[in-house]
Amino acid sequence: MNNLDLNTIRDRLRKFVNERDWNQFHNPKNIAIALSIESSELLELFQWLTDAESQELDKGKQREAEMELADILIYLIRIADKLDIDLLDAVAKKLEINEQRYPVSKVKGKAVKYKEI
Amino acid sequence: MNNLDLNTIRDRLRKFVNERDWNQFHNPKNIAIALSIESSELLELFQWLTDAESQELDKGKQREAEMELADILIYLIRIADKLDIDLLDAVAKKLEINEQRYPVSKVKGKAVKYKEI
Amino acid sequence: MNNLDLNTIRDRLRKFVNERDWNQFHNPKNIAIALSIESSELLELFQWLTDAESQELDKGKQREAEMELADILIYLIRIADKLDIDLLDAVAKKLEINEQRYPVSKVKGKAVKYKEI
Amino acid sequence: MNNLDLNTIRDRLRKFVNERDWNQFHNPKNIAIALSIESSELLELFQWLTDAESQELDKGKQREAEMELADILIYLIRIADKLDIDLLDAVAKKLEINEQRYPVSKVKGKAVKYKEI
Repeated sequence: MNNLDLNTIRDRLRKFVNERDWNQFHNPKNIAIALSIESSELLELFQWLTDAESQELDKGKQREAEMELADILIYLIRIADKLDIDLLDAVAKKLEINEQRYPVSKVKGKAVKYKEI
Repeated sequence: MNNLDLNTIRDRLRKFVNERDWNQFHNPKNIAIALSIESSELLELFQWLTDAESQELDKGKQREAEMELADILIYLIRIADKLDIDLLDAVAKKLEINEQRYPVSKVKGKAVKYKEI
Repeated sequence: MNNLDLNTIRDRLRKFVNERDWNQFHNPKNIAIALSIESSELLELFQWLTDAESQELDKGKQREAEMELADILIYLIRIADKLDIDLLDAVAKKLEINEQRYPVSKVKGKAVKYKEI
Repeated sequence: MNNLDLNTIRDRLRKFVNERDWNQFHNPKNIAIALSIESSELLELFQWLTDAESQELDKGKQREAEMELADILIYLIRIADKLDIDLLDAVAKKLEINEQRYPVSKVKGKAVKYKEI
C-alpha cells in the first residue's frame, strides 16, 4: 500500500520542519503539548457517545479519526526524534514489562491497574 | 535491534488483550481516554520546565519518557486496530495535506495554524 | 461551613505563590498545562469504569476526586487572575450563550454539539 | 457586577440540563471527559507561544480564553454536583495540605513536586 516506515516518516518530518524553520518551536515540551492536544481532539470524537456507539462511527467521524491518529503518530515520532528514543525498542521493553505486571491468572476479565494488583 | 513493526505489535497486543479477556474494556472511547491520559503523563514530565530545560532531561525522566512514548504508541495501535485504520496510510495522507496547507513561502519561521494562514 | 469565596481564594493563592517566589513559573501557558494535567488526573479516576460505575465511586476514589476538583479550581482561579478574567462574569456570559445555542425544542434528549444543530 | 455564586450557578445548570433531558449523558465519567477536552482547548490557545507571549494574548484569544474558562468552571460545578462534593470545602482542605507540603524554606524559587522534596 505504501512504503513508509517509522524511520522514513521521521526523515520526512525532519525535512518538513527544517524547510519551514520550525525547529525553534519543536522543543520536547511544545511537542508534548501538541500530542496532548491532538489526543484530546481524538477523544472529542467520542464525547457523549456510549461505549457501544463509539464502535460504529459514521463516515465523517471515521475520516476525522483517521486524521487525528495520523497527527498523534506524527508528533509521537517528532518527540521521539528530539529525545533520541527508538519507539519500537521502547514498545518492545514495555510489552515485556506489561507481561510481567499483568499475569493472566491475576487480571483475567478485570480492568485493574498494576498498583492495585 | 529488534524486529518489531507496527503489524507485529498489533498482533502481540491482540493476543495480550485476548488472553486477559480485556476486549470488553477496549472500545474506542475507552482507548481514546487512555491515550489522552498517557499523553498527559508525558506532558507532566515537562511541567514547569523551560523550553530549554525540556531538551536536557535527566536520566530518570528520560527513562520515564521512553515508557510514556511506548504507552502512547501501544494505545495508538490498539485504537487504530479497533477502528480498522492503517496508521501508516493515515500518516501518508496527512503528510500530503500538511505539505499543501503549509507552503514554505507562507509559513517559514512562523508558528501559524492553517486556519490563520 | 467555610467562608471562602473565589476572590478570597484568589488572594490566598497570590500570597502562597509570592511567598514561594513561584510567579516566575506561573505564566498562563504553564498554568494551562497544569490545568490540563489535573483534569487528566481526574479523568484517570474513571478510567475503564462503565458510566454506571462512575456514579458510585468507592471512598478512596471519592476522596481523590475531591482533591483533584480542588486542584482544578485552584489553577482555574490562578489563570483567571493572570489573564485578568472574572470567572463569574465569564460564566454568566457563557450561560446566556448556551441558552441560545441549545434551544430546548431542538436538543431535548440529544447530545448534539451546537455546530451540528 | 453580577450576583452569581457557585451554588446559584449549580442550580441554573441543573435546570438547564433537566430541561434538555441531558442527565442521561451527564454521568461523572462523561463530565470528566468534557472537562479534560475543555482544558485542552484552553491550552491550545497558548500552543507554540513562548511563556512571555502567553502573557499578552491578543483580543480575540483573550475572549476565547474567557469562554474556555467559563466552560471549565461550568463542568467543574457539574461534576462536583454529581459527586456531591463541595468545591469550596475541597479547596479549603487542599490549601492547608499545600501549605504543609510546600514549606517556604524548602521550595522557595524552585518548581518542585512534593514527591521530590
